[in-house]
Amino acid sequence: MSNNLLKGKRGIIFGALNDQSIAWKVAELAHLHGAEFVLTNAPIAMRMGEINHLAEKTGSKVIPADATSVADLEKLIAESMEILGGKIDFILHSIGMSINVRKGNHYTNENYDYTMKGLDVSALSFHKVMQTAMKLDAMNEWGSIVALTYIAAQRIFPDYNDMADNKSYLESIARSFGYHYGQAKKVRVNTISQSPTMTTAGSGVKGFDGFINFSEQMSPLGNATAEDCANYCVAMFSDLTRFVTMQNLFHDGGYSSTGVTQAVMEKFQS
Amino acid sequence: MSNNLLKGKRGIIFGALNDQSIAWKVAELAHLHGAEFVLTNAPIAMRMGEINHLAEKTGSKVIPADATSVADLEKLIAESMEILGGKIDFILHSIGMSINVRKGNHYTNENYDYTMKGLDVSALSFHKVMQTAMKLDAMNEWGSIVALTYIAAQRIFPDYNDMADNKSYLESIARSFGYHYGQAKKVRVNTISQSPTMTTAGSGVKGFDGFINFSEQMSPLGNATAEDCANYCVAMFSDLTRFVTMQNLFHDGGYSSTGVTQAVMEKFQS
Amino acid sequence: MSNNLLKGKRGIIFGALNDQSIAWKVAELAHLHGAEFVLTNAPIAMRMGEINHLAEKTGSKVIPADATSVADLEKLIAESMEILGGKIDFILHSIGMSINVRKGNHYTNENYDYTMKGLDVSALSFHKVMQTAMKLDAMNEWGSIVALTYIAAQRIFPDYNDMADNKSYLESIARSFGYHYGQAKKVRVNTISQSPTMTTAGSGVKGFDGFINFSEQMSPLGNATAEDCANYCVAMFSDLTRFVTMQNLFHDGGYSSTGVTQAVMEKFQS
Amino acid sequence: MSNNLLKGKRGIIFGALNDQSIAWKVAELAHLHGAEFVLTNAPIAMRMGEINHLAEKTGSKVIPADATSVADLEKLIAESMEILGGKIDFILHSIGMSINVRKGNHYTNENYDYTMKGLDVSALSFHKVMQTAMKLDAMNEWGSIVALTYIAAQRIFPDYNDMADNKSYLESIARSFGYHYGQAKKVRVNTISQSPTMTTAGSGVKGFDGFINFSEQMSPLGNATAEDCANYCVAMFSDLTRFVTMQNLFHDGGYSSTGVTQAVMEKFQS
Repeated sequence: MSNNLLKGKRGIIFGALNDQSIAWKVAELAHLHGAEFVLTNAPIAMRMGEINHLAEKTGSKVIPADATSVADLEKLIAESMEILGGKIDFILHSIGMSINVRKGNHYTNENYDYTMKGLDVSALSFHKVMQTAMKLDAMNEWGSIVALTYIAAQRIFPDYNDMADNKSYLESIARSFGYHYGQAKKVRVNTISQSPTMTTAGSGVKGFDGFINFSEQMSPLGNATAEDCANYCVAMFSDLTRFVTMQNLFHDGGYSSTGVTQAVMEKFQS
Repeated sequence: MSNNLLKGKRGIIFGALNDQSIAWKVAELAHLHGAEFVLTNAPIAMRMGEINHLAEKTGSKVIPADATSVADLEKLIAESMEILGGKIDFILHSIGMSINVRKGNHYTNENYDYTMKGLDVSALSFHKVMQTAMKLDAMNEWGSIVALTYIAAQRIFPDYNDMADNKSYLESIARSFGYHYGQAKKVRVNTISQSPTMTTAGSGVKGFDGFINFSEQMSPLGNATAEDCANYCVAMFSDLTRFVTMQNLFHDGGYSSTGVTQAVMEKFQS
Repeated sequence: MSNNLLKGKRGIIFGALNDQSIAWKVAELAHLHGAEFVLTNAPIAMRMGEINHLAEKTGSKVIPADATSVADLEKLIAESMEILGGKIDFILHSIGMSINVRKGNHYTNENYDYTMKGLDVSALSFHKVMQTAMKLDAMNEWGSIVALTYIAAQRIFPDYNDMADNKSYLESIARSFGYHYGQAKKVRVNTISQSPTMTTAGSGVKGFDGFINFSEQMSPLGNATAEDCANYCVAMFSDLTRFVTMQNLFHDGGYSSTGVTQAVMEKFQS
Repeated sequence: MSNNLLKGKRGIIFGALNDQSIAWKVAELAHLHGAEFVLTNAPIAMRMGEINHLAEKTGSKVIPADATSVADLEKLIAESMEILGGKIDFILHSIGMSINVRKGNHYTNENYDYTMKGLDVSALSFHKVMQTAMKLDAMNEWGSIVALTYIAAQRIFPDYNDMADNKSYLESIARSFGYHYGQAKKVRVNTISQSPTMTTAGSGVKGFDGFINFSEQMSPLGNATAEDCANYCVAMFSDLTRFVTMQNLFHDGGYSSTGVTQAVMEKFQS
């Protein structure tokens, strides 16, 4: 595609861990569409990843930052503006992690220190990014900020655990901050509620295979892939969607509006 | 139960076809709670049913009425006030029928005359009941009007066909008329979105067994029965819920907020 | 903008009445993005409009069609494929009309013949368009169908009258048909819930000025204009949004997620 | 009213601060309906309140407990079962507090320690109550747990600040825990989204008068009072609503389904 929907736009992309990551696909596609951006990830996550290959491929700089640390975020955003030569037009927040999930704590047996830490990483970090950007006056008017979420914020999936509550909090931050950032600077803030995606993060969830299979069979168009999601992110970063804000946008092949499909029903008929 | 939550209240109950009907259970329970009411059904439906037994059991009169006929509704409501000795406190609308479903027309092959007729019976009738009641000034202040609906108004079930669109229209009428009736007379209007229920109406839907089975396994508390629904209707007719209006209330054992259950997932794991 | 997001795509655009119409703006922008399309409108509406100027400007043909007539739609779609040289990639449905509103009938005093006629024009026509397209196998895979709607489908605005119920029905059709068209042909179907827009259609609603003013003050980004809406439609027709289906998408400057703004609150403080 | 809907039921009521509190009204009404219960509040809140009068009036014991302390909750629940002579049938969670609001920190200038503390008190405490109850096997089958919330979880009110995010998290906990408690013990969990209410807690929010006034004029039935809310809580604790779970129930005089009222519109017409 020869489009350049993001030409002249500057961004910051959180969460590109490896080439299965949605954020990775967003970076590749944003680059094709003419954007310039900084890549960032938690120092510990970055050592595991191959982010430098992505940086090379897209002509980007990498700045490590712990998204729960306001100091790190201040440094990240200030340096990004310097590197990119101006204010920021788009931010992708693709960060999530539940220690309770990792440790195998059932939802009814949470360790509350883990709960708080997971919330900080998965949700409050989104507020911190925006609060820091606002304090540094780092966003251009009509800038676009997107965080990735999952429908567990609305409907319960037993193994998704406290990530459901984290995603609800994240989506609420999008609305709350979207209100204030919209009024103050015409910046828009949305969440994209993506099909379950076989990323490194996703594969940490127990029974994830069955989960993806169920979702595939419950979606009239099938599950959206990471590449599809990147396309949608580019649309949301572009000037085509300037009046969409404070929304949770389902990108899921119709899953969210489907009660049941023929294929699934057949498993329940005698 | 020795309660008399509806003591002194007068009602009209549409749709008691036989002892599997939700409306039938509502009539029985409303009677136990001290209400007096008129039973009504379409003349053609009544010949098939056993409504006279219900009338006897509950000390009620039966007035046949085609709910799509404003003339019939005028007669029904006027006579009901006369029989019951005053204005009406509650109305149950439990009516629905799709000719496209009956005739086996797929949703993508609708006969539009059937569509319109089904809409008139299943949804517009609800407006006609309320418009007629309002013109006759037939409702007491803080009266409560309830229509039964199904989650197909929000999420698609392939065999539910144009009833999904009818239920969406019905729920919209509840909001629209609820606004105006609330402002004018403090009458509240709500829909109850009930689990699939093995009634005569329900059993007309193709693959209904699998449907109910799926729903049962997807509901943390299981499907709500017709008796449970009657309990909820009584709560909604009582003075305990006077400020609930213009709502669609899920009465479904948690189905609507469940993404998947362990039991369902197991069918999708390899 | 030098983009050509719709290059090679063929469409049908319903409802371009004059240069205030959203459909008019969509046609202009789709043309800039490389699409070819047919314009259509009801014969009676067309006589009032200036659609031929738009056709000239965009190199389009005009085919009059009453969207409630299946025969007209069959002719429209068959001829469109012939003129455009292949199957269709996108359809815009921007049609709505309430005779009850025009005649000044209050919502609690509907004339039900008018109600049915308005529903046919405003909502059932959307089903007819898709059913006809499906029968003629007229859509390409991953085609995109969009209808315009308004938040009155979710929340009541007293003067919007039976259009609220029509829009609920319309949005339900998008879900229902989206399910079946997605499964059968990977065609996606969505509604865009647009800010109130000062079009010829909009200005027919009583008190529309106050309505638009209220909405403007209740939207963190202000009301979205017809041009903005055209941008969003182009995004929804493009390949960037292939896994978005069966959704109602708010394009409203944040209105739908705003409880109140500071500006509005000030009118209620003593 | 001579009803005894809660006869034989045992409960725990959190958050009765003074006679303006919703929890206070719930205690009074639950007592009239035959329930026996324990009252609890944070030690610091209790010194300010008049909870002992309520305890006397309703024949209840008071057990101080910090709802963020699992140890306190364990003691509370264990002692409650002892005092009441058996397992618990209902719990009311009416707790909320934002330090950012108290300190006057704007939403875009949060102190994150305050944010975390407010979340713990306002939302995570609800999880802690249920996790503790489940570990102690303290709930009877078909027990009912309700937390109070506000529509700011869905739509932004500028001064509601981080309480919006807290309420979103709270409502998510209701769904998440409702799933697990429903499956394990048939216990239901819901939130009631109440009109703004002039309680001591409510009056801490900036511009609360205008807020209540706006809400009153935007609600077809007017704002629901604390007494009305108590009625609804009793309905939700009773056996009439056993299949309602994982829901957020609006108790708001129709506010949530109203776009605008005539009264509000008039302020925006020229």
